[in-house]
Amino acid sequence: MEKNILLGHGSGGKLSHELIEKVFIRHFSNEILKQQTDSAILDQIAFTTDSYVVDPIFFSGGNIGTLAVCGTVNDLAVSGATPKYISAAFIIEEGFPVSDLEIIVQSMAEEAEKAGVMIVTGDTKVVNRGQCDKVFINTAGIGLIDEKHKHISTGAQIETGDVILINGSIADHGMAIMAGRNFGNFKTDITSDCAPLNGLIREVLDAGCRVKFMRDATRGGIATVLSELAAGKGIGLEIDEPEVPVSENVRGMCELLGFDPFYVANEGKVLIVVHPEDAAKALSIMKNHEFGRMSAAIGRIVSEHQRKAILNTEIGGRRIIDMLAGEQLPRIC
Amino acid sequence: MEKNILLGHGSGGKLSHELIEKVFIRHFSNEILKQQTDSAILDQIAFTTDSYVVDPIFFSGGNIGTLAVCGTVNDLAVSGATPKYISAAFIIEEGFPVSDLEIIVQSMAEEAEKAGVMIVTGDTKVVNRGQCDKVFINTAGIGLIDEKHKHISTGAQIETGDVILINGSIADHGMAIMAGRNFGNFKTDITSDCAPLNGLIREVLDAGCRVKFMRDATRGGIATVLSELAAGKGIGLEIDEPEVPVSENVRGMCELLGFDPFYVANEGKVLIVVHPEDAAKALSIMKNHEFGRMSAAIGRIVSEHQRKAILNTEIGGRRIIDMLAGEQLPRIC
Repeated sequence: MEKNILLGHGSGGKLSHELIEKVFIRHFSNEILKQQTDSAILDQIAFTTDSYVVDPIFFSGGNIGTLAVCGTVNDLAVSGATPKYISAAFIIEEGFPVSDLEIIVQSMAEEAEKAGVMIVTGDTKVVNRGQCDKVFINTAGIGLIDEKHKHISTGAQIETGDVILINGSIADHGMAIMAGRNFGNFKTDITSDCAPLNGLIREVLDAGCRVKFMRDATRGGIATVLSELAAGKGIGLEIDEPEVPVSENVRGMCELLGFDPFYVANEGKVLIVVHPEDAAKALSIMKNHEFGRMSAAIGRIVSEHQRKAILNTEIGGRRIIDMLAGEQLPRIC
Repeated sequence: MEKNILLGHGSGGKLSHELIEKVFIRHFSNEILKQQTDSAILDQIAFTTDSYVVDPIFFSGGNIGTLAVCGTVNDLAVSGATPKYISAAFIIEEGFPVSDLEIIVQSMAEEAEKAGVMIVTGDTKVVNRGQCDKVFINTAGIGLIDEKHKHISTGAQIETGDVILINGSIADHGMAIMAGRNFGNFKTDITSDCAPLNGLIREVLDAGCRVKFMRDATRGGIATVLSELAAGKGIGLEIDEPEVPVSENVRGMCELLGFDPFYVANEGKVLIVVHPEDAAKALSIMKNHEFGRMSAAIGRIVSEHQRKAILNTEIGGRRIIDMLAGEQLPRIC
């Protein structure tokens, strides 16, 4: 692999995978970590961690604090766990305004309240000016998981014919961040989709829908989740491009800036693989939830082209959905 | 409080306390966080987090990775918990050598092995050059705790007459870091005391010693732990300065640089408050452990001067051990 760390090593794509395989898993080697699930499943609990370095720290639809709570809540929820406890660790640059910190902390408290989790432990480090950029936040989370949902994080029960659902439009978060950076001097009203998804997911599970797999499509977008799933489970996927919700202004901004929305980060979108007989029920539950109004069935598990996710494009073509090769948008979350 | 974040807000001293009280606890308000223990005690589990920003990242006796594992293992162990699972989240500066990352990751794996914990989940973010300094690591940890040890983290059973033990010499870590920074162009052989203390602590607990309270004396040194304990529990403490182990070269370096070793960070030292009848037994167990050869009884809980920790000095005087007011050594851990 490369001799020095590249931005792409943090992209969630190919380089990230290489770093994880060749450095982290090689040394930390154990059966739980090897699963490479978003949360580690430990007996009755799920355990996860994420650091947040988003730039700018305040953006339309949220801030680094809302992201830090929602991201970790979602990592637990997509494992089939009920998120319970969150830790919050801050690395702050000397000179950072306390008033900004208060806004962030208050947002974290509000998101935690919404998600029904408690922030129970924390840490604060301060580094000299110029040694970090404003503030970085790490959250770790603990959730409770039922025996019957443990298969979800690895997708052990996925079968041909299972349907792939998503709870709304893609690429909103990534484009809101780009707009926040004044990239291209855009004036847009694009808002991040940052939201805790544990409520929506819980309703689908509690209704008895046979959920086979879930993953929140953050860094690297839905393309990364889909290509990882196909490669990791050795299965074929098909996605129907016209069914994938993309809002008009996001599509416009993506086209102008040359981004493929499939690779752009979301912070409130979950891909759900569900038994075909339960797809309509799950979709109806999702559409009735505030974070799922634009939910859609976007594809299915197929018996062909194993290890590949194939896109049926709007213009009637077919192409492979591949993993992100480099870094598209550093510090997107 | 201050309008902007100062280095002292990360010191573990007075400013840190103010920030925790006025910003974090005010907003995150809940009964568990309010305890301000190193680990949150949640039913049968203990949960903790710490970010590590030590500079330099490699130093005599360890590196940022050994620190990240030992620190979190120790936070769990001093709560009376058995550390089990660790998360590892990296924020890496673009251009950081992968070979250095490998050394760090390998050290983490080794310390985890020594401590008997598994690193089960993780995260990697990469930021642009200049947006963080080399690498920051966050570890969160989960431990299992017995009902009978739950009182330890809050010190609920502390009584007058209890004895205060320490497992060896103080200020080694802080001075090793200072030497690593070539502060004052020192040539020393001072080595950080960075070590996982869960083994030593487990032996003391398993021998049935009535441990009332434990705390690892990291940022802010033993002075901070002692003054916090006195103020937090409304009790009086007395420490006998001649009994507190300080190695000769550390004492010399502290004197030359103007540091009080009581305020200098440790990464392998635990203060144990134990029932007086069990003090000799605990001390003997500690001295037989590789991380406790220089263990000593350094003081006791007294009925006088409540809320104050008093030092009986070497020259026969008495003075108050106060909390650190500013920041002594930024990025010490």
